[in-house]
Amino acid sequence: MITSTGNKTVKDVRDLVKKASCRRDRGLFVVEGIKMFMETDPGDIEEVLVSESFMRICPTEARVRLRFLRHNTLTDTVFEYVSDTRTPQGIMAVVRMKSYDKLDGSAFLILDRLQDPGNLGTIFRTAEAAGIDGILMNRETVDVYNPKVVRSTMGAIFRVPFMYVDDLGEEIKRLGATVYAAHLDGKNDYDREDYTGPTAFIIGNESAGISDETAACADRLVKIPMQGSVESLNASVAAAVLMFEMARQRRSSLPERAAVT
Amino acid sequence: MITSTGNKTVKDVRDLVKKASCRRDRGLFVVEGIKMFMETDPGDIEEVLVSESFMRICPTEARVRLRFLRHNTLTDTVFEYVSDTRTPQGIMAVVRMKSYDKLDGSAFLILDRLQDPGNLGTIFRTAEAAGIDGILMNRETVDVYNPKVVRSTMGAIFRVPFMYVDDLGEEIKRLGATVYAAHLDGKNDYDREDYTGPTAFIIGNESAGISDETAACADRLVKIPMQGSVESLNASVAAAVLMFEMARQRRSSLPERAAVT
Repeated sequence: MITSTGNKTVKDVRDLVKKASCRRDRGLFVVEGIKMFMETDPGDIEEVLVSESFMRICPTEARVRLRFLRHNTLTDTVFEYVSDTRTPQGIMAVVRMKSYDKLDGSAFLILDRLQDPGNLGTIFRTAEAAGIDGILMNRETVDVYNPKVVRSTMGAIFRVPFMYVDDLGEEIKRLGATVYAAHLDGKNDYDREDYTGPTAFIIGNESAGISDETAACADRLVKIPMQGSVESLNASVAAAVLMFEMARQRRSSLPERAAVT
Repeated sequence: MITSTGNKTVKDVRDLVKKASCRRDRGLFVVEGIKMFMETDPGDIEEVLVSESFMRICPTEARVRLRFLRHNTLTDTVFEYVSDTRTPQGIMAVVRMKSYDKLDGSAFLILDRLQDPGNLGTIFRTAEAAGIDGILMNRETVDVYNPKVVRSTMGAIFRVPFMYVDDLGEEIKRLGATVYAAHLDGKNDYDREDYTGPTAFIIGNESAGISDETAACADRLVKIPMQGSVESLNASVAAAVLMFEMARQRRSSLPERAAVT
C-alpha cells in the first residue's frame, strides 16, 4: 500500500495527469474511472492505481482484469492527490498513447486550434456516433490526452483515429476528400451540399473561428443558417450539425433504406 | 468607491451570484461581462457594479448606458470577490427575471431534469439559432439564472422565452404540438419524422435520460442512429441534432426555397 504523496509512482502519475509535456515526453496518459478502465485495451495499460476504498467494492470483471496488470493500492488521501476529479472513483490507469501515421476512410473532421477540453471530448464522442473515420488537428488544438478531454470522449479516444500535425494544409491534401468549412463567408446552406462522397469538415477555434490559412484549404465554404441574434454556434454543436447531416444523407442514399420508405 | 467586502451591496450581489434561493426570493439575477451588459434591456437592470480598472477602459457605448443606470464602482479586489469568473471583465449587472405565463409558437424544447450548467446554456444558444419559440423545464432542471448558464447562453436567455413548471405533463398539453422524445426505445430514425407542423422535443437528464413519466408525454419516441460503440450523445448535441433537423425541414418546405433549387 502506498501511503505517501512523496512516493515515486505517485509523483510520476500525478505529473502525467497535470502536464501535457510529461505526457508527450513519456508517450503515456491517464484514464480515470471504472468505465474508462474497462474500455481500455489491456495491452495498452502500463500500470493501474487503485484506492483502498475502491478495492473493497471492486466489481468482479475489474478484479479479473487487475490480476493480469501491474497495480498499486493507494490510501484514499493519496489517490485523491493524484486524481484529476473532485470525487474520484478510485481507479486510474496509465495508458500508452496510440499513434496513427495516416487517416483512412471517407469521413473526416479537421480541428483548427480548438481550445476547450470539454468541446474536444464531446466532438470525439459525437464523431464516433456520426461515423467519422478520423480526426486531424493542428498542434494548437488542446491536448486530447488532457484528463478532462479523455473523460468527456466517453471512450471514443480509443476508437476514433486521430493525428496532430504541424501543417494542416499538407495533411488535408492526403485525405483525398472534399473539404467543407462552416464559415461566416459561406454561401450555400450546409444542407444543400452532397456529403455522400469522401468528406471532411473543418471546425475552428471557439472565439476566432477558422484561420484564413486553414479556410483556404477548404473546397467549399458553407453556412449553417441561424435565426435570432445568435452570432455563432458552440464549436461542438456546429460539428454535430454538420456530421449528422452527413450521416443522414449517407443513410438516406443507401438503396435498401430507400426501398423501405 | 466601494473598498470593503463587508459592504451591503457587495454582500447582496454576491448572494445573487452564489445562491439560487436568493435569486428566486428576490426575482433578480446577475449578468457579467461587457457583452452581456450591452445585450441586457436597460429597463430590466436594477443596478450595475463596475471595477476601478474597468472604468479606466470603459468603451463609450457602455459609458453612455451607465449614465442612465444606478452603478457602483468597486476596487478590483472587491469586484473579484463578487464575481463568478476567474478573470472578471470588471462589469456586472443585477437584472430582473422575466416571467412567461405561456409559451407560444410552433417549435418547443422540453428539458427533463437537465443538470449540467454548460449544457443548458449551450442548449439555449442553439435553440435560438434553430428557431425554437420556447423552452419548458421542470424544476429539477438546473437554474438558468446560474451565472455559468447565463454566460453560456450568449444572450439567448434574453431572447428565448422559457418556463419552469412543477408538472411537465400539464404544460406539454398546452403547447398543442406533436411531442418527440429521443429515446433508446425509439423505433423511427429522427430524420424520418415530419417536423414542419407544431413540434416539441424532449431532452432528458445527462446520465438518466428521460424519466418514464416524461417519456409517457411523448407522442413519438424516435432514435438518433449512432455508429461505433457510443451509448448516447451529449444532451446538448442530441438537442442540436433534433432542432437543426427541424430547421432544415422547415427551410426545405418553404415554397420560395424549393423554387430556387
